[in-house]
Amino acid sequence: MLLRDITGLVDGKLENSDPDVNITGVNTLKEARPDQASFLANMRYKIQAETSHAGILFLDDKVFPGVSRPIIRVVDPYLAFALLQRHFHPERQADGLRHESAVIDVTASLAEDVDVGPLVMIGKRVRIGSGSRIGAGCVVEDGASMGQSCTLHPRAVVSASCELGNNVILQSGAVVGSDGFGYAWTGREHLKIPQVGRVLLEDDVEVGANTCIDRGAIGDTVIGRGVKLDNLIQVGHNVRIGAYSVIAGQAGFSGSVVVGRGCQFGGQAAVAGHLHIGDGCKIAGKSGVTGNLEAGGTYAGFPAVPHRLWLRVSAIMLRLPEMWEKIGRHIS
Amino acid sequence: MLLRDITGLVDGKLENSDPDVNITGVNTLKEARPDQASFLANMRYKIQAETSHAGILFLDDKVFPGVSRPIIRVVDPYLAFALLQRHFHPERQADGLRHESAVIDVTASLAEDVDVGPLVMIGKRVRIGSGSRIGAGCVVEDGASMGQSCTLHPRAVVSASCELGNNVILQSGAVVGSDGFGYAWTGREHLKIPQVGRVLLEDDVEVGANTCIDRGAIGDTVIGRGVKLDNLIQVGHNVRIGAYSVIAGQAGFSGSVVVGRGCQFGGQAAVAGHLHIGDGCKIAGKSGVTGNLEAGGTYAGFPAVPHRLWLRVSAIMLRLPEMWEKIGRHIS
Amino acid sequence: MLLRDITGLVDGKLENSDPDVNITGVNTLKEARPDQASFLANMRYKIQAETSHAGILFLDDKVFPGVSRPIIRVVDPYLAFALLQRHFHPERQADGLRHESAVIDVTASLAEDVDVGPLVMIGKRVRIGSGSRIGAGCVVEDGASMGQSCTLHPRAVVSASCELGNNVILQSGAVVGSDGFGYAWTGREHLKIPQVGRVLLEDDVEVGANTCIDRGAIGDTVIGRGVKLDNLIQVGHNVRIGAYSVIAGQAGFSGSVVVGRGCQFGGQAAVAGHLHIGDGCKIAGKSGVTGNLEAGGTYAGFPAVPHRLWLRVSAIMLRLPEMWEKIGRHIS
Repeated sequence: MLLRDITGLVDGKLENSDPDVNITGVNTLKEARPDQASFLANMRYKIQAETSHAGILFLDDKVFPGVSRPIIRVVDPYLAFALLQRHFHPERQADGLRHESAVIDVTASLAEDVDVGPLVMIGKRVRIGSGSRIGAGCVVEDGASMGQSCTLHPRAVVSASCELGNNVILQSGAVVGSDGFGYAWTGREHLKIPQVGRVLLEDDVEVGANTCIDRGAIGDTVIGRGVKLDNLIQVGHNVRIGAYSVIAGQAGFSGSVVVGRGCQFGGQAAVAGHLHIGDGCKIAGKSGVTGNLEAGGTYAGFPAVPHRLWLRVSAIMLRLPEMWEKIGRHIS
Repeated sequence: MLLRDITGLVDGKLENSDPDVNITGVNTLKEARPDQASFLANMRYKIQAETSHAGILFLDDKVFPGVSRPIIRVVDPYLAFALLQRHFHPERQADGLRHESAVIDVTASLAEDVDVGPLVMIGKRVRIGSGSRIGAGCVVEDGASMGQSCTLHPRAVVSASCELGNNVILQSGAVVGSDGFGYAWTGREHLKIPQVGRVLLEDDVEVGANTCIDRGAIGDTVIGRGVKLDNLIQVGHNVRIGAYSVIAGQAGFSGSVVVGRGCQFGGQAAVAGHLHIGDGCKIAGKSGVTGNLEAGGTYAGFPAVPHRLWLRVSAIMLRLPEMWEKIGRHIS
Repeated sequence: MLLRDITGLVDGKLENSDPDVNITGVNTLKEARPDQASFLANMRYKIQAETSHAGILFLDDKVFPGVSRPIIRVVDPYLAFALLQRHFHPERQADGLRHESAVIDVTASLAEDVDVGPLVMIGKRVRIGSGSRIGAGCVVEDGASMGQSCTLHPRAVVSASCELGNNVILQSGAVVGSDGFGYAWTGREHLKIPQVGRVLLEDDVEVGANTCIDRGAIGDTVIGRGVKLDNLIQVGHNVRIGAYSVIAGQAGFSGSVVVGRGCQFGGQAAVAGHLHIGDGCKIAGKSGVTGNLEAGGTYAGFPAVPHRLWLRVSAIMLRLPEMWEKIGRHIS
């Protein structure tokens, strides 16, 4: 791909290079060869950028002013990298292959071009939209449905009656629609409560490997448009996660939690049952949320408090031995 | 179902309604229609109860005294809901269907009415009791056994020689009997120790989606009668969990931990190796247990301490900046 | 096996017994019968050792000096136990059986003696070395490869192009090569960045049940020789874990973390993105690492600090109510 075309694709400004130079791929700053592009998005890697052999670098306006090597100035180097990488690695298209070992119920309705891999099970009345690809060993239970251009990686499970929108991706081992954790104590035993709700994944949702999303107890568990869930996340029954929220690995949401739009959760963060997290909240990794959180805030710690407070508290906490000693000396 | 019959089923007292009114299902306070029942078990939702269109509400004696709408007074509204929901959604019965794609070893012994879904693997000498249902893609390895009326959701694994009692439920992706994490350091490498114990799940155990229970190193890992494990829980080798304990998602138990009867663990709680947790303990979410715990206590924090102490400590912790400043001003 | 031969196997010194006594197996201190061996490696179980009926005990020089029962003195009783247990339970050998239900692409290249279980999927151009065993329901995607004597337990996934060395073990449900969690925000949505790197597992790596290892975004995710990963661990894209490190269950590594050789991580520990952990570090369970860590240290807490500091801080933390009161009385 010519630098001229790359510059157009990423909406940037080419400097110090002939626009007809050819670039064949993308690589890290360290590994990139002269025919490859690279990018500097994290200032941790600034020194690597200086010594990189990449043929072209995506940089924002702030770094290396007046540099003489070939660069493309962009607003967001990471986005430029993403766009170019997507150009070189387009998504695989469905071609309508159905492996003979797949078990597809006669009442299932699949678009012509849907791929079905080996050893897949597709149940009764399942509907699958055009361009979707079902990887080896997946199970799509009775009455489940998905829209167009979904990708199920090997061994994902979509349980009975759950619904996926368009462009949904399930990584390997993801479970959509396991029973929620609901029991009533009879005085002698825990009585299982039938979990009769569904899971709804709206368009453009991605679910990480071995992540589990429980079906609703009565109503549905709903993951909003464009939400990205990393690996090994637990989403309890009747949770609702607002559009475009991003959740890192091993986070956990207890039953009936409501998360607003555009929130971010760090890894291993958790939210106790029935709480509301306002739109646009950022929750640091390992936080434990024990109360409702107002929109737009940044929170950390356990119990989760505003991030600035937690930073101060955790810094002072490390000086507790010193405090303890001072107090012991002066206060009897 | 007539209110008359519902009242009997839940052992309640009908008020303000004709007992011959018909109810067709259960729903949330917010969504319930006039032909549906609902319930108020969590006072968070009291306002929703006041405005609910449900045809009948399960309430305990304490809320809404003298209310004029149709209600059924019960001791435990949540239990009443559970009983009614189970009436409307009885468990699916096994019908003895064996999918032709299932691989069942000739030496396996399955009761007549056992269901075996598509693409299931059942190994040598496996025994499966009457009424059990094995979902698509499950693997039951050589020598494993299960009692009556077990339900294995898709892609559950029961490893070699593990034993499940009656009415055991495995959610999708659950792994029963993976190798425990045991190595001996030779000075040059970690030597794997063969994990030759089994996992025993007693009657009425439920195991959540993608939860892992390691087989014992020598003796067995034992999950007691009626224990409920949520999703993504780690149970190390030779752990013993006492009857009727309830463990929330992403909790973790290191090797050889012994948990008493009737304990409760919140999400992401963890217990270090070889510890004993007494009967009836309640451990808050995210706790990290680093010592033995006496029976009947409620614990929280990391390291886990009595819950009341932790509440005070964590409240004061947030005032550390204030304390720090005071001390700085007065003590030099 | 004669005590004479056991003594040789574990490089020990037999005391108080005829070397021609026969031992038939290994058991716990509590359960061992007179024809079985046992060992004392954890002083927690010293009393059980005194009353054990084991025919022979592995002990180090420090415990029970002058005891009159049959013992074998060894440097490391746990290692002696491991060696003997491995003798009695040798690894199962591959015998070249290919189950007829397995789907093996014609372009795949498998050594003669490779076992392939039922309902396995092996993709295009996959290479599998001699002595490897592929359990029921596993998926090995196009272009993946593994060396000699690997063991894949049921339903493990090796994604496209990932490479496993020799003697690699994947427990059930492990996912090697899921997509990393990489998106660029366009201002309107999260744009998925193609994850085109691989996962490389070097020789003697073991991966626990339902553990997930993401493929690199560009370069590879690399797990070094002899690394042992427990269950339900999250390894983000482009992480590198140094040889012989041992990671306990539910730990998490964000993207691009670099872990040195011979490190140890406790359960539920986590490391934030792009950090470096020096060789030989020990990180306590539930720690949250938020900065680079120097080699050879022992760390704990969140944020993770030197273990001794954390022990003092967490002890004093529990006396915060007392401190608070003292300060309140003396400082106004």
